[in-house]
Amino acid sequence: MMKAAAIVQSPWSLNQKPSHYPYKSDLVDGGGFNLSTFKGSSIKIQTTIFPLQKQPHKLEVRASIGNTFGNLFRVTTFGESHGGGVGCIIDGCPPRLPLSESDMQVELDRRRPGQSRITTPRKESDTCKILSGVGQGSTLGTPIAVSVPNTDQRGNDYSEMALAYRPSHADATYDFKYGVRAVEGGGRSSARETIGRVAAGAVAKKLLKIQSATEVLAYVSRVHGVELPDDVVDHEKLTIEQIESNIVRCPDPVIAEEMIKAIDMVRLRGDSVGGVITCIARNVPRGLGSPVFDKLEAELAKGLMSLPATKGFEIGSGFSGSKMTGSEHNDEFYIDDSGNVRTRTNRSGGIQGGISNGETIVMRVAFKPTSTITLFPWLRQWWH
Amino acid sequence: MMKAAAIVQSPWSLNQKPSHYPYKSDLVDGGGFNLSTFKGSSIKIQTTIFPLQKQPHKLEVRASIGNTFGNLFRVTTFGESHGGGVGCIIDGCPPRLPLSESDMQVELDRRRPGQSRITTPRKESDTCKILSGVGQGSTLGTPIAVSVPNTDQRGNDYSEMALAYRPSHADATYDFKYGVRAVEGGGRSSARETIGRVAAGAVAKKLLKIQSATEVLAYVSRVHGVELPDDVVDHEKLTIEQIESNIVRCPDPVIAEEMIKAIDMVRLRGDSVGGVITCIARNVPRGLGSPVFDKLEAELAKGLMSLPATKGFEIGSGFSGSKMTGSEHNDEFYIDDSGNVRTRTNRSGGIQGGISNGETIVMRVAFKPTSTITLFPWLRQWWH
Amino acid sequence: MMKAAAIVQSPWSLNQKPSHYPYKSDLVDGGGFNLSTFKGSSIKIQTTIFPLQKQPHKLEVRASIGNTFGNLFRVTTFGESHGGGVGCIIDGCPPRLPLSESDMQVELDRRRPGQSRITTPRKESDTCKILSGVGQGSTLGTPIAVSVPNTDQRGNDYSEMALAYRPSHADATYDFKYGVRAVEGGGRSSARETIGRVAAGAVAKKLLKIQSATEVLAYVSRVHGVELPDDVVDHEKLTIEQIESNIVRCPDPVIAEEMIKAIDMVRLRGDSVGGVITCIARNVPRGLGSPVFDKLEAELAKGLMSLPATKGFEIGSGFSGSKMTGSEHNDEFYIDDSGNVRTRTNRSGGIQGGISNGETIVMRVAFKPTSTITLFPWLRQWWH
Amino acid sequence: MMKAAAIVQSPWSLNQKPSHYPYKSDLVDGGGFNLSTFKGSSIKIQTTIFPLQKQPHKLEVRASIGNTFGNLFRVTTFGESHGGGVGCIIDGCPPRLPLSESDMQVELDRRRPGQSRITTPRKESDTCKILSGVGQGSTLGTPIAVSVPNTDQRGNDYSEMALAYRPSHADATYDFKYGVRAVEGGGRSSARETIGRVAAGAVAKKLLKIQSATEVLAYVSRVHGVELPDDVVDHEKLTIEQIESNIVRCPDPVIAEEMIKAIDMVRLRGDSVGGVITCIARNVPRGLGSPVFDKLEAELAKGLMSLPATKGFEIGSGFSGSKMTGSEHNDEFYIDDSGNVRTRTNRSGGIQGGISNGETIVMRVAFKPTSTITLFPWLRQWWH
Repeated sequence: MMKAAAIVQSPWSLNQKPSHYPYKSDLVDGGGFNLSTFKGSSIKIQTTIFPLQKQPHKLEVRASIGNTFGNLFRVTTFGESHGGGVGCIIDGCPPRLPLSESDMQVELDRRRPGQSRITTPRKESDTCKILSGVGQGSTLGTPIAVSVPNTDQRGNDYSEMALAYRPSHADATYDFKYGVRAVEGGGRSSARETIGRVAAGAVAKKLLKIQSATEVLAYVSRVHGVELPDDVVDHEKLTIEQIESNIVRCPDPVIAEEMIKAIDMVRLRGDSVGGVITCIARNVPRGLGSPVFDKLEAELAKGLMSLPATKGFEIGSGFSGSKMTGSEHNDEFYIDDSGNVRTRTNRSGGIQGGISNGETIVMRVAFKPTSTITLFPWLRQWWH
Repeated sequence: MMKAAAIVQSPWSLNQKPSHYPYKSDLVDGGGFNLSTFKGSSIKIQTTIFPLQKQPHKLEVRASIGNTFGNLFRVTTFGESHGGGVGCIIDGCPPRLPLSESDMQVELDRRRPGQSRITTPRKESDTCKILSGVGQGSTLGTPIAVSVPNTDQRGNDYSEMALAYRPSHADATYDFKYGVRAVEGGGRSSARETIGRVAAGAVAKKLLKIQSATEVLAYVSRVHGVELPDDVVDHEKLTIEQIESNIVRCPDPVIAEEMIKAIDMVRLRGDSVGGVITCIARNVPRGLGSPVFDKLEAELAKGLMSLPATKGFEIGSGFSGSKMTGSEHNDEFYIDDSGNVRTRTNRSGGIQGGISNGETIVMRVAFKPTSTITLFPWLRQWWH
Repeated sequence: MMKAAAIVQSPWSLNQKPSHYPYKSDLVDGGGFNLSTFKGSSIKIQTTIFPLQKQPHKLEVRASIGNTFGNLFRVTTFGESHGGGVGCIIDGCPPRLPLSESDMQVELDRRRPGQSRITTPRKESDTCKILSGVGQGSTLGTPIAVSVPNTDQRGNDYSEMALAYRPSHADATYDFKYGVRAVEGGGRSSARETIGRVAAGAVAKKLLKIQSATEVLAYVSRVHGVELPDDVVDHEKLTIEQIESNIVRCPDPVIAEEMIKAIDMVRLRGDSVGGVITCIARNVPRGLGSPVFDKLEAELAKGLMSLPATKGFEIGSGFSGSKMTGSEHNDEFYIDDSGNVRTRTNRSGGIQGGISNGETIVMRVAFKPTSTITLFPWLRQWWH
Repeated sequence: MMKAAAIVQSPWSLNQKPSHYPYKSDLVDGGGFNLSTFKGSSIKIQTTIFPLQKQPHKLEVRASIGNTFGNLFRVTTFGESHGGGVGCIIDGCPPRLPLSESDMQVELDRRRPGQSRITTPRKESDTCKILSGVGQGSTLGTPIAVSVPNTDQRGNDYSEMALAYRPSHADATYDFKYGVRAVEGGGRSSARETIGRVAAGAVAKKLLKIQSATEVLAYVSRVHGVELPDDVVDHEKLTIEQIESNIVRCPDPVIAEEMIKAIDMVRLRGDSVGGVITCIARNVPRGLGSPVFDKLEAELAKGLMSLPATKGFEIGSGFSGSKMTGSEHNDEFYIDDSGNVRTRTNRSGGIQGGISNGETIVMRVAFKPTSTITLFPWLRQWWH
């Protein structure tokens, strides 16, 4: 039964908006109701409708911050999915670093939705503009503000939309915390807030490259059950071209094909899959990271686990390293021809005692499957 | 051959950076030497000695911080393994929370080394003392300083010791960063710095318990290859008594026995093993966590990955969740009898969109095997 | 002699640090030269030209931050005087506060240059635009980004301008710190960066008003030698209308006239004057401020002394209070009719022990005369 | 009448402790009472007794932090006046700085109460002990914990004491904020918390001296009405010996005598006086301070205004500078013989645009008279 279409179009305004207290229904015959199986579909969708509460609710003042990352190179992102735009301020970038919109645009283009059939269909040009902090083609040492207007704004008429808690989305918890549904397309929980991160990341990458020839690369190492074996990619030789050579961004073309097939199979029936990203940093200066709480792997874990949909983080030997003995796991030191201290193996993943040792940092991040799933294409408008 | 005893006073350097401790070498015939296989042992030990540079080195001013965690409930730890003592300052604890040394001492006793044959043999009483912030048995709202003197200080005469970079220890990286070997027993990289964390954690646990009946529990779920299956422990009913019922702290007595056997087998030959800890938080208030960068799972990841020897972190479904499809992974909402919003499953691990939803938070942390391994018991005095 | 027009393209350096802008000198006969007295003027202007160094300078990485204020209600400002625009991000504003551009615009209009003959002649419309954080007329609890484009950009062709260290401006120190002259109109040292503060301040004022009926008002209490006596303004009854009733913003019309005369007298000969602002906060909730380092008066001092051109700060009795004895200075407690704890006098200025006590907070801030002074109106284009 | 002796000995416990609600007296005939004039004394003392509230008050959880100062060199102080002890943790001190207790002890001895008749009579030895962060006579780069036990604890039996709000003390506001009277001698509002600051300051002074030959000196420039004229002290030549040459720490012996007389006159009748401290910093590296919010003068203002009893702050020309015109106020640049950029005058006080320019930083801080005043010596036990 087409209960999806029946999802209530309950008007909701902020003035009468309650917070996370239970709601009494005024459209449903007693209590909430579950939306279950659809004819002709093998997917089970569940949406619970929470009726609107009548009593007015005085202004809550539970605020919170958490939109800033970093101490000396500090990034604050802003913007919701369906507001005016998204962006960031980068504070602490040293002066006289050559910088322009194109440095960021190339990364934003890599991120852009609608670029292939396997990604979100949303159409955004995601064109960035630098508002401050750059003069004569170089940074001034002052805050760099970057703005990326939202152009594709689906389903703007939200007063008409069903306002239900979509399973595994942030709707419920945002409501618990803010008393605001952040109707605007999932608000800050939307993946569009990562645009500000990507723009700032572009600046950081450039700085690291110029400063110490450090490179940061990431690729898809698993999609659903299709996994890239450990010994296929040589991290010392990996290039961005290898990664960008296919739409799933896996450096091995054979595995890449299998990954695309796996995604297609699931996508066409409206479902989604998860996977794992491997991220490396090469030529990392030694000595980064501050025990005890700001150990480098701890900061990296926080940064990566703050991305949407992440469920796990590993560095070096990760969970499999916990199955080794000490004599198997230890990385031997030796001095190379240039007189540098090196390790023969790298189960530490480039970090020991919370501080980088100069070896390549290797991390893996697990992503759960996207919560936004659909039955039929024409229903897509209600989702994100 | 007893080369282990011969690892002694070899001057070393790191490129051109000496520390400020003089070493007298008496075994080296110019330059460093490698210590490799020992007769009668299956363990291969490698220690490289780095010769000391002659020129004095002007005062470096590379400082760093990283000894503080938290914004509103803020903990700063201090203390090295072989200095006067360790401890912490807790700032931001609300006033009028009943508190005394005994609240912390019970947790420190759980942590104490030398409590069973399977842990470090070091003998410390680890008795804490509150220096400030408490009056008449309750907190005053002012900083709570806690001090735990070091009593067992092995091998104090470090000028006699070999000062080589122990493989996979923090020696090398501490030297890279600080130009200081932190000879005092591994300094801040030693596990003894966790004493300050445990003391502060005791205060936090009490506060959470009184404020919202929140409980935090952790147990060993894997040692080397011996693993507790997922469905054995019921997180809603788990108690501290179950965890404390055996020396390996695994709630299932049968698996616990196998774990102890696995440790014994490896320990007696001087090697070490890694494993996994599962940590849960029950009755968590909803609404904790601040997107985007301070998502609750990101903060938890940072806190846990800042512990010594950690190599991986998972929340909820973790890495295995990345193998599911969206329809398999999503947690259904429903309203329970008390009118609360609940989820039927909990693959999210109690956190959605970076904010707690009230369900139990479930995390797993992977620990690599300890880097400190020994050949023979009598050599143990030189290690940690 | 018209040496003012002759201050032009002289290469300069600071020890050996050039900026990255090329300058062509055409007036200097080797080395720098001083510009001293002008015929027909009683003003002595001095500008020193520093010769430019030849050797290239490798990329400095001395960065710094300092563009953020606040912990829970956190403001980051961006923008230079002659870049694309200025603005701010406000993080931590609670959700569901009614907010729109007009709330900020009214404050920006009060600040706008060119509004009267006694202020800077620059013509800016200073129209703000909210980029994020507001939906359906209320805040969402997410970061609020505000952008104010620069429209009047005088003297854009800076390669032609004299690039000397203007006395008492920030040119020299910016150069010391960043190696960048921040040619764009004084960059971040320009008063235009206060636009971001004013926009954020408008949001804070609204929040305080709604939350606790707190009001914040400021007025000019001294200009040069013309001073408003202490007993003229009743702080409990002061209104914004009284303050806005004249162009110098002094609540007493008679003194206001004298102030305007004093400014005119000095302005017409190209000089500037300083003065004092008195700022009050009424109906402040009790209990704000955190000993020891974040005492409320310390935070206020930091905020106010971070404004351009400030040279002194007082709270309550200020410097004159230091001339009293304890028995003269103490504020007596009493209980008023509503049962509230009050003080009969308020030499404390509303803060005791670093915490607000509910009485009106009274502060005074001293501003030095503007460093930007001119000989003749037509020269004004080279200055700010 | 000896009502002072009649100050109520109302038992007070934390369990029935209300917060800032009015108390009902059980010794006074209805309502509070004022303690007014004493026979034979010209001082008027007022103390209001607030009756104790009966209803229990549930546990407040209003916590706050504010016990930490600094970003890269970070100090957290702890300790109350009548608890176990006071101290600090210094985080971020670079490694290999020679340091021992004696470096701090010399400063603590300068601070110690009871050192002369004109200071507080409390007898404390204030002996500090380093608990961590130092090894072999040098810093390790890890947190330095310093502890100073309280030895003189007057009037320990507080359950017997009257618990009234002493005028102009922090009693009332601490109660408003924390719901805790901080009976222990004024708790954190006591001047004893400055011990931690002094210990940390000793480390900072040593570091600055070694790093850049920077010196920090402070002296008393005004006591009550006795003022040191501006031109008497040459800041470029001032020495610590000149300052320490008399008990009032004024570098001019003649003025010092008048100051001592002024204090004596007031002290003997149980009253107190305020004054002004002038503080200078010589050989300050150029480039310190971060516009816009962390301007150097703003940070200095915050640090100094966080000291107990401060009411005003000035830098450079201060309030008097606001009476000058621009042409009078500007500091001319010139290049000295070594090729350094210097200013001929220093009304800026060493800071321009929020950044240090290398000239001596000159600040003045106004202190109100101490709130603790007494009638007769034998009453002193009830006060602090």
